[in-house]
Amino acid sequence: MKKIKLVIAYDGTDFSGFQSQPGQRTIQGTLEEALRKITGEAVSVHGSGRTDAGVHALHQVCHFTTSSPIPVEKYPYILRRTLPRDVLALSAEEAPMDFHAQKSAKWKTYRYRLDLRPIPDLFERRFRTHVPVSLDVEKMREAAGYLVGTHDFTSFCSAKTEIQDKVRTIYQCRLEQEPGGLVIEVTGNGFLYNMVRIIAGTLVEVGKGRIRPEAIPGIILAKDRQKAGPTFPPEGLVLVKVGYTPWKNSGFTASFS
Amino acid sequence: MKKIKLVIAYDGTDFSGFQSQPGQRTIQGTLEEALRKITGEAVSVHGSGRTDAGVHALHQVCHFTTSSPIPVEKYPYILRRTLPRDVLALSAEEAPMDFHAQKSAKWKTYRYRLDLRPIPDLFERRFRTHVPVSLDVEKMREAAGYLVGTHDFTSFCSAKTEIQDKVRTIYQCRLEQEPGGLVIEVTGNGFLYNMVRIIAGTLVEVGKGRIRPEAIPGIILAKDRQKAGPTFPPEGLVLVKVGYTPWKNSGFTASFS
Repeated sequence: MKKIKLVIAYDGTDFSGFQSQPGQRTIQGTLEEALRKITGEAVSVHGSGRTDAGVHALHQVCHFTTSSPIPVEKYPYILRRTLPRDVLALSAEEAPMDFHAQKSAKWKTYRYRLDLRPIPDLFERRFRTHVPVSLDVEKMREAAGYLVGTHDFTSFCSAKTEIQDKVRTIYQCRLEQEPGGLVIEVTGNGFLYNMVRIIAGTLVEVGKGRIRPEAIPGIILAKDRQKAGPTFPPEGLVLVKVGYTPWKNSGFTASFS
Repeated sequence: MKKIKLVIAYDGTDFSGFQSQPGQRTIQGTLEEALRKITGEAVSVHGSGRTDAGVHALHQVCHFTTSSPIPVEKYPYILRRTLPRDVLALSAEEAPMDFHAQKSAKWKTYRYRLDLRPIPDLFERRFRTHVPVSLDVEKMREAAGYLVGTHDFTSFCSAKTEIQDKVRTIYQCRLEQEPGGLVIEVTGNGFLYNMVRIIAGTLVEVGKGRIRPEAIPGIILAKDRQKAGPTFPPEGLVLVKVGYTPWKNSGFTASFS
């Protein structure tokens, strides 16, 4: 029996999110089906966290345990032949038995991409949210600065969550302009349900001049979802990286990237 | 009654090509359906040429005639609200009654994009063909040079065509490297069925060392489809531009791009 840490990427557009749901096409279900074919075992896949329907990943981490004799470094190659074209296995390595893709995660980085052109870039429409307005990026940067730190992010969490403890730490919230667009990149020790999409929606309200940057601390303190901006759509969101404390012998990674 | 020249872009992935076919999702069918809703008329749309299933367009030109009182400059706005997300109306202008999107076209430019990375860029997979090999680009450029000029391109045309006259002029065939990939751009006065996809397949054979650049003139002269390289898949191909001789008063274009 061994535990395998698997890094994958996916285009979430045609998936009903990460987590398995009966009768739905999901990342977890697709991976488990592929690993069942490969190993002949009923493999359970655990992700670093769920991504919603339509949300993408450049680097999502999963783990599973298997008794299969297949060498760990072969999994990316074999999975590439088995998985559909919108999921890609990037790397695999053996992990300690106490490694857990979700519980061992130390930080995550998400990116939210906006397409600001009057008409959207057709070929990027699956990965950018179209917001055809001009935004005051400096004001948005000022607002982003207020989000950094350890706060109760109730105002930036969907009311539908079941999680009680809404204190999270944001290490960095950067805004970067790209041709025709703007990227909001957030790194934190964990994220609540819809949190990055609400941050994006709130920063765009700031960029439009509807919320002042100095209002952000009050919005956080209010612990009231109604005070923050709208939940932006999923297409602009991508999970960029999940970080872990390296373990002994780590580094012998079968990596393609 | 007026004639309208309409410029559109599309992601061809989820279409069965440009031309209407019963029971299939096509660009022409989608446009005619949208224009029927907008004008209340049974509008016929004519394109500058057919693109195959899975082939894209950054700039495809169409024409249609209508008696609708809708101002020409409003069509792009109205179409954007009516068309599905994978077709985009870029501009519309009134054209002389003798304008014909196909017959009046003077030249076309196509681009074929190759993804040369060991593992494909997941987010570009709809628009690049994955060829994970190293290619001798200088040899490919040399081969491309032999294609330029007026030739009978029978060797570079699908045997399935019904067209008799296979003489076409290629004005330019450029190769440009981009991060992780290579772009083949071909401009000519017209293209035969699968011609650009066969040019791409043949140039890649040259890049791999399987066909020598100096063999290209002989391949052209043979007028034998078997002599050229394989027909490459549609996803890497995009129609970039269709050129016309400007008409009097042209230039009053309702353009977004």
